Amino acid sequence: MRPLILITNDDGYAAKGLQTLSKVAQEFGDVLVVAPEGNSSGMGLSITTKRPVRVWQISEAEGLSVYSCDGTPVDCAKLGIEQVAPRRPDIVLSGINHGSNSSINVMYSGTMGAVLEATAMGFNAVGFSLLNHSPEADFSVCEPYVRRVVERVMEKGLPELVALNVNIPRLPADEIKGIRICHEAKAQWLDCFQKRIDPRGIPYYWLTGKFSCPEPPEGSDEWALANGYVSVVPTSCDFTHYDSIDKLADIELCECLNA
Amino acid sequence: MRPLILITNDDGYAAKGLQTLSKVAQEFGDVLVVAPEGNSSGMGLSITTKRPVRVWQISEAEGLSVYSCDGTPVDCAKLGIEQVAPRRPDIVLSGINHGSNSSINVMYSGTMGAVLEATAMGFNAVGFSLLNHSPEADFSVCEPYVRRVVERVMEKGLPELVALNVNIPRLPADEIKGIRICHEAKAQWLDCFQKRIDPRGIPYYWLTGKFSCPEPPEGSDEWALANGYVSVVPTSCDFTHYDSIDKLADIELCECLNA
Repeated sequence: MRPLILITNDDGYAAKGLQTLSKVAQEFGDVLVVAPEGNSSGMGLSITTKRPVRVWQISEAEGLSVYSCDGTPVDCAKLGIEQVAPRRPDIVLSGINHGSNSSINVMYSGTMGAVLEATAMGFNAVGFSLLNHSPEADFSVCEPYVRRVVERVMEKGLPELVALNVNIPRLPADEIKGIRICHEAKAQWLDCFQKRIDPRGIPYYWLTGKFSCPEPPEGSDEWALANGYVSVVPTSCDFTHYDSIDKLADIELCECLNA
Repeated sequence: MRPLILITNDDGYAAKGLQTLSKVAQEFGDVLVVAPEGNSSGMGLSITTKRPVRVWQISEAEGLSVYSCDGTPVDCAKLGIEQVAPRRPDIVLSGINHGSNSSINVMYSGTMGAVLEATAMGFNAVGFSLLNHSPEADFSVCEPYVRRVVERVMEKGLPELVALNVNIPRLPADEIKGIRICHEAKAQWLDCFQKRIDPRGIPYYWLTGKFSCPEPPEGSDEWALANGYVSVVPTSCDFTHYDSIDKLADIELCECLNA
């Protein structure tokens, strides 16, 4: 039986980036797409708890089944794995996102939310993003990198509870220099809101902002992307900061209140 | 000028747990509440991008201003810090959540989403949760632990990009043994969906599931909570799994595709 590859994203099942990912994935196995109906950007790791979710079959062909779900990307991953997949997927892929998920943007990313969910569920999982929001973005530049990453992860596996966050620079194919393993660059969003006044005189706020990451160090994803490399960040679904466990003794939290 | 303490949550500005947190926080400074209108559980780190958000003043008193926002907990933290606060907050607190945010539940937690956002923005931030969903939950058992943690963090600060995730067991005050610094227990949600059939014969799925964490090791938050301790997990807003950066060399991702 061919490997089963579950694909989701946060741009919707019909997105151009997902088509490219699905095309490359079919070289490695049967592909099952369970993806949101439309744009679910910024959904991060959120789940749908106040209403039930639904899933519809969009198409069925040899080696490629496509379903749409009205939940978040995490819902899609959970539902795809538990309810839709005919057998246990061998790998879970997400993307290719229309736009960057590098640095701290991984926090808000539905693309990576689905990936971290799958990782927590015990699957090898990888998210892909192209640094290009344009509807005319050429996702074909991503293909050799998607192929390489999927092939290596399917053969070798990933460390437990660790996913990969792959970002691909917006460059012509022959200007991309290769792949770098990176850490997240430290960055901030500044001036996050645009305040406007509605026709009744009441203010409202659009989330926007400027991404600020001055002089990212070599070794970070922003450095790699700015220097023509594909960045691959090993990303943990265990958010514990282990190095701080001992350090916190210094702040004397634990003096026993009931002693 | 007194310190400024920004408070948010994911249960809504009127939630009982937030009242307790706000009461204790007022011992340490002026309190500004910017919290969701109502229940925003499961929103994780999601942000609102498709529509603008609004904020309303609910009440204003000496040392306590309360605002409601129709965005996610992360939106509340961002908007509270950038648009509502009259000066830079000295600390950002979230909760006290009605129910656990221990182990992998931190991924989906709006309470902790707001905390991680504030941490990424450079603030000391702490999330509090009580392991009790009941509307009659007695949050007063949390008070000495909230007081201790807020006092120590305001005095000593936290490591860069690290927040605290504090969970308080559902026990009478005199049975809580103290505070333990922990790591997240490895766990899974099993049987995540309940399938039902609507009156038209079409299936729909409720997200539910059983939390499974068999034999959590000493040192983990689930162990601490099961043994009568308050768990404090240092939680990172940098999701990089640094230990895997070198390990990934073994899977030979980086052989330069354009070499």
